Amino acid sequence: MNDIPERRPNAPRLTGQVRIVGAGLLGASIGLALQNQRIDVILADSSPAQLRLAVDYGAGRPEQPGDNPSIVVVSVPPDVTASVIEAELARFPGAVITDVASVKLEPFRALTDRGVDLTRYIGSHPLAGRERGGAISARADLFLGRPWVICRDDETPPDALALIEDLALDLGASPIEMTPEEHDRSVGLVSHVPQLVASILAKQLVSAPDSAVRLTGQGLRDTTRIASSAPELWVQILGSNAGPVVDVLDGIAADLAKVTDALRSPDAPGARRTLADTIAAGNTGVARLPGKHGQDRRYASIVVMVDDRPGQLGLLLTELGDIGVNMEDLRLEHSPGAQIGLAEIAVLPEVQQRTIEDLEARGWRIASV
Amino acid sequence: MNDIPERRPNAPRLTGQVRIVGAGLLGASIGLALQNQRIDVILADSSPAQLRLAVDYGAGRPEQPGDNPSIVVVSVPPDVTASVIEAELARFPGAVITDVASVKLEPFRALTDRGVDLTRYIGSHPLAGRERGGAISARADLFLGRPWVICRDDETPPDALALIEDLALDLGASPIEMTPEEHDRSVGLVSHVPQLVASILAKQLVSAPDSAVRLTGQGLRDTTRIASSAPELWVQILGSNAGPVVDVLDGIAADLAKVTDALRSPDAPGARRTLADTIAAGNTGVARLPGKHGQDRRYASIVVMVDDRPGQLGLLLTELGDIGVNMEDLRLEHSPGAQIGLAEIAVLPEVQQRTIEDLEARGWRIASV
Repeated sequence: MNDIPERRPNAPRLTGQVRIVGAGLLGASIGLALQNQRIDVILADSSPAQLRLAVDYGAGRPEQPGDNPSIVVVSVPPDVTASVIEAELARFPGAVITDVASVKLEPFRALTDRGVDLTRYIGSHPLAGRERGGAISARADLFLGRPWVICRDDETPPDALALIEDLALDLGASPIEMTPEEHDRSVGLVSHVPQLVASILAKQLVSAPDSAVRLTGQGLRDTTRIASSAPELWVQILGSNAGPVVDVLDGIAADLAKVTDALRSPDAPGARRTLADTIAAGNTGVARLPGKHGQDRRYASIVVMVDDRPGQLGLLLTELGDIGVNMEDLRLEHSPGAQIGLAEIAVLPEVQQRTIEDLEARGWRIASV
Repeated sequence: MNDIPERRPNAPRLTGQVRIVGAGLLGASIGLALQNQRIDVILADSSPAQLRLAVDYGAGRPEQPGDNPSIVVVSVPPDVTASVIEAELARFPGAVITDVASVKLEPFRALTDRGVDLTRYIGSHPLAGRERGGAISARADLFLGRPWVICRDDETPPDALALIEDLALDLGASPIEMTPEEHDRSVGLVSHVPQLVASILAKQLVSAPDSAVRLTGQGLRDTTRIASSAPELWVQILGSNAGPVVDVLDGIAADLAKVTDALRSPDAPGARRTLADTIAAGNTGVARLPGKHGQDRRYASIVVMVDDRPGQLGLLLTELGDIGVNMEDLRLEHSPGAQIGLAEIAVLPEVQQRTIEDLEARGWRIASV
């Protein structure tokens, strides 16, 4: 884990202080990434324990009298986002305020309804996350290569917009401009509905017999992975974006009814055609998605077979250090009763081949990836 | 380190010839794995091109006069499985015939209806696959650690059953006995329905604007990955297992209707409760899944903060050994630039508390999970 190379050789675009309100997964990840670029990051959180953890983690420092941020990033739960934006606008009249909430129209409307001057507010949304929240799950590379939606309007001052774009760019993300409505419809389709569908599918497993669950393969694991997300957060997100989500759910319910009807009489004329058309349309839909499944293109993977005896994994890690390889991530898979475990190591692509050769020279067996 | 055991240190259990009819993904993978163990594998396929490809690939040899297999594995599409089983039973009176079709009741009924003597037939189903089919996608390790359902009945001769179990074991799979009905209900839930749900979800993307698709994250990619599966095969599978699939789809449609109703009036009494209950039930369901993504409930988790200095993780593993704790699983998370990494350790629940205390006594910091 030592000597991890810098990933962003260029100087940061941002100057001045960045204040982050809410030191959860997104807030702490932003802080971590900016601190790595020597930007002065001020952290605030209503939970002292969460704040302490994020500071310990290296995501920033607690606020001090005289702090004068040029940007405030509000990364609090959706139901308090609007109030916190309003308070930060009032407290830091020289700062541009942004938020990273998953829904953009509702906080905008709430603030407009209250008559808040939103000239210095620019809503944004980095499309990045993990199933597990909290500062404890923060990663400086969370935003690398991810889209970062920025909601401007005709009144948005160009220099304020430039600041938020610089923030996204300094975090390695790609800024994308959208209206709040366009954003909410888009994430309803590509994020909120998939969450609900995964949850509903996983719900069917609750009362399944063990013998059935035991047959689970990677397909079901993938389709339900995000079903482990936190209910509190998702109730807020879904409740704030109900209209666009319902539109997509109606389409799904109609397709589901068609398929179920076909399966009730699978030998009726047209029944198999309905099934084939549905699967084929799924092929077409999934082919539109950018990026490859499951591949974190930043890292290459090596799977090492590790004997199921004490000390073997420690030995592997020590030897990786000896050959000078920085492990970016490690995952151990071991099925009960198996003689070997599989340690999946993520390394930078340029050292993958050398690492495999060096490990094999030391007697390790590499499983095909 | 030279003491990692061979992946398959033992000689194969099977002796004699194994004939594989259908050299697609499963057939060629079985052939490849058995050939690696120096078993004489005979391949047959109605497509000369597919056969030639599988032979070139190393999955076996073409049949010759005088071949006398002890096992015939039928791995052809579901709609011809019963006919091929019948033909192979007649052609090789000394062999035990199995098939690897995804549905078990329908071929069994078709053969019984035709009055075929099924004493030497034992249906089976390895729970293994990939999105891409054909011999070209074959892998010798496709079955490693995967369940392999074997459908016996009271008339099944023990030595015939033992042969099919040996086949599964030689391929590294875990044999599981089930009735055909139990098998079909189980895979309806854990395999066939997830396929349909993924396809229907992916279908909603067909007419989505590019700007929405561009926001896709890992969540949608995972939930729709299997939507790239081939329509021809899946129409056959779904049509052959319609009853059990419809039962699960009905449950999904009911849950979907409940959630959609709640979202139509998200501020009505009970609406948010419905959403929260659905997401929470999804948490419960996904937690039951064995392996990678879901949490294995047999184990308790401890997250240890590990300083980003050389040797710290090795030291942690050594100390776990010193205090006599057997680590069942390990996952390391480390964000580039962070001062600490997080080692998530799975242990038996009964030693969790003691492990935390012993580690803290030795100066390790435990993060809340």
